[in-house]
Amino acid sequence: MTERPQPAGAGGGAAAALLPRGVLVVGTGLIGTSAALGLRAQGVTVWLQDADEESAAVAEERGAGVRGAPETAPDLVLVAVPPVAAPTVILDSLRTYVDATVSDVASTKARLQREVEARAAESSSTALLMRFVAGHPLAGREVSGPAAALPDLFADRVWALTPSEATEPARTELVRAVVESLGALPVVTTAEEHDRAVALTSHTPQVVSSTVAAGLGGLGESAVRLSGQGLRDVTRLAASDPGLWTEILTSNAEPVADALDALIERLSAVRDGLREGAAGPVRGALEAGVAGRRLVQGKHGSGPVEFAVVAVTVADRPGELGRLFADAGRTGVNLEDVRIEHAQGRPTGLVELEVAPASQAALAEGLRSSGWDVRG
Amino acid sequence: MTERPQPAGAGGGAAAALLPRGVLVVGTGLIGTSAALGLRAQGVTVWLQDADEESAAVAEERGAGVRGAPETAPDLVLVAVPPVAAPTVILDSLRTYVDATVSDVASTKARLQREVEARAAESSSTALLMRFVAGHPLAGREVSGPAAALPDLFADRVWALTPSEATEPARTELVRAVVESLGALPVVTTAEEHDRAVALTSHTPQVVSSTVAAGLGGLGESAVRLSGQGLRDVTRLAASDPGLWTEILTSNAEPVADALDALIERLSAVRDGLREGAAGPVRGALEAGVAGRRLVQGKHGSGPVEFAVVAVTVADRPGELGRLFADAGRTGVNLEDVRIEHAQGRPTGLVELEVAPASQAALAEGLRSSGWDVRG
Repeated sequence: MTERPQPAGAGGGAAAALLPRGVLVVGTGLIGTSAALGLRAQGVTVWLQDADEESAAVAEERGAGVRGAPETAPDLVLVAVPPVAAPTVILDSLRTYVDATVSDVASTKARLQREVEARAAESSSTALLMRFVAGHPLAGREVSGPAAALPDLFADRVWALTPSEATEPARTELVRAVVESLGALPVVTTAEEHDRAVALTSHTPQVVSSTVAAGLGGLGESAVRLSGQGLRDVTRLAASDPGLWTEILTSNAEPVADALDALIERLSAVRDGLREGAAGPVRGALEAGVAGRRLVQGKHGSGPVEFAVVAVTVADRPGELGRLFADAGRTGVNLEDVRIEHAQGRPTGLVELEVAPASQAALAEGLRSSGWDVRG
Repeated sequence: MTERPQPAGAGGGAAAALLPRGVLVVGTGLIGTSAALGLRAQGVTVWLQDADEESAAVAEERGAGVRGAPETAPDLVLVAVPPVAAPTVILDSLRTYVDATVSDVASTKARLQREVEARAAESSSTALLMRFVAGHPLAGREVSGPAAALPDLFADRVWALTPSEATEPARTELVRAVVESLGALPVVTTAEEHDRAVALTSHTPQVVSSTVAAGLGGLGESAVRLSGQGLRDVTRLAASDPGLWTEILTSNAEPVADALDALIERLSAVRDGLREGAAGPVRGALEAGVAGRRLVQGKHGSGPVEFAVVAVTVADRPGELGRLFADAGRTGVNLEDVRIEHAQGRPTGLVELEVAPASQAALAEGLRSSGWDVRG
């Protein structure tokens, strides 16, 4: 797996030289329209197509490009349709635009890749595959459709590219240049590695969050009150849309099932240790968890960092957070993360400010001198 | 399970009339010293004891009370020693102070309760149990020891009380009054219900977070980059201290093992569904998760609420968050929660402001007019 982060900002330097002149975007949802807007902002000619004419019209109105068939041959076709339709659209695009590079945005890659390859083989047209560069931008949520699209949706987001062995390297470089021009961080890997990674980093956490939350069903509301921020963190993903996630999980069925097997094995070891009065497996799982947590991305690419916490009691009314963060800003300390914990039935909340350990004392001192109730 | 939230603020009204005049705190760690400081602030006489003389000295220096044996009979003995020592100290206290109510702060209750009862029965002194009110304050983390103690550590925190059938109701009322005077929210329940609840709301989330994080071990650092805020949320607890958590989990072994059994069953159903190409069990688990997440405590006791998100791009330097929250405050919209997402290798972060759905448009509009890059 290689990576080459570029500085932020659209269309700079070497990337610009590589940018396609004309791009056809097929599928004008959130992802397709956002990419189109980002390309238009760099002067690239963009054509828009969608099975839903209204969607394409909204995208056109927003300035994402021109509806209809390309007037000249596109250098790139970006297929941003729902996963179920992707293989057909990818192959049609490869056949229609005989010189174009074709890429897609589906969130799982191996199954799609296999289907595209199988269909190309059926029609004895595996040469098409030289021009296909599969991709997956890790962006977009909460909202959907062309009306929600934004030219900077991909800024600072990882965009995985999974070329196959058949893919020509120059095709991958073109897509990489487009991805970088949109402000995203390209990560080039194989379809299988990608799927195994997201099974562990995205799909398993979703299943776990849902199943932990489901287990609360037997408790009354006041029993659930015997909980803290930890339960809120672990169950946050459980609020996700079941329809969308059923589609994602089933499209990556085997890697997710494998990851769940491994997880179940680790959970069973802890359970058996507890039943048998053996502390060893329990402690072993907790220690492996500490090591794994260190891998979860830190910031600035500088590797994992443990932050120190400054906790402040804040009245729960408009403006109080503004006053707090203004005072925090005057201390010159950079805040790494913020969490707000509300207590049931009380008019106050606890705000936890995470900072570099070396800055903890300065921030606590500064806030106390501004009259804040600093706890830790 | 009953509950009776009281308004915040120490020592008001009816509770003050019930407050003990003299309290012996045995164990001057974070919890014991914090309770002592809170009681001293209300004029209660407090004596301090700890097997570690230095710890008791630090607590005394901080104004938490006077070291040594009580000069007059204490009304309450609060046992705040490590769980392994708790049964002995509880029974000694019940025997030494023949009129005192005795309470403790251990984080699991049934096993301790059984041991206290068994030992009392051995010495034919079950009458002692009338004065014992077991308890568990859900507070304290990140820091430990008397130096980190704070008189308001328990403000807005749930404090479970688990009297047994032998406990005299007036004893429970005394401890409830003390808990309320410290600003905490008493929840009275049985030891078994308490342990079953925390197995689901606290102990299982810890095990799950650790085992999910442990599963990342096989991935390289760039594969872990194929992840988002979801993985950070789910694995946050995995950073917890393995030694402390081994003790907690083994002290609640049976309820945690039962909860893990149920969780493993739900995970297995999802895994089998994925392997068999059956979407039904997958969707079923996700839907049960949505329902369970709704139970996780909302704010203000008003029940679960779904918030809307306003996402803002913010430069990662001191003062920017202050400027953002000051501008947000001027819109008059109350912020319910805040999350900051940093991108690796980039000088910006994404701040997600959660607000009541009705306030979303006003906040987004207000921030845009102040020049902020609002995304959603």
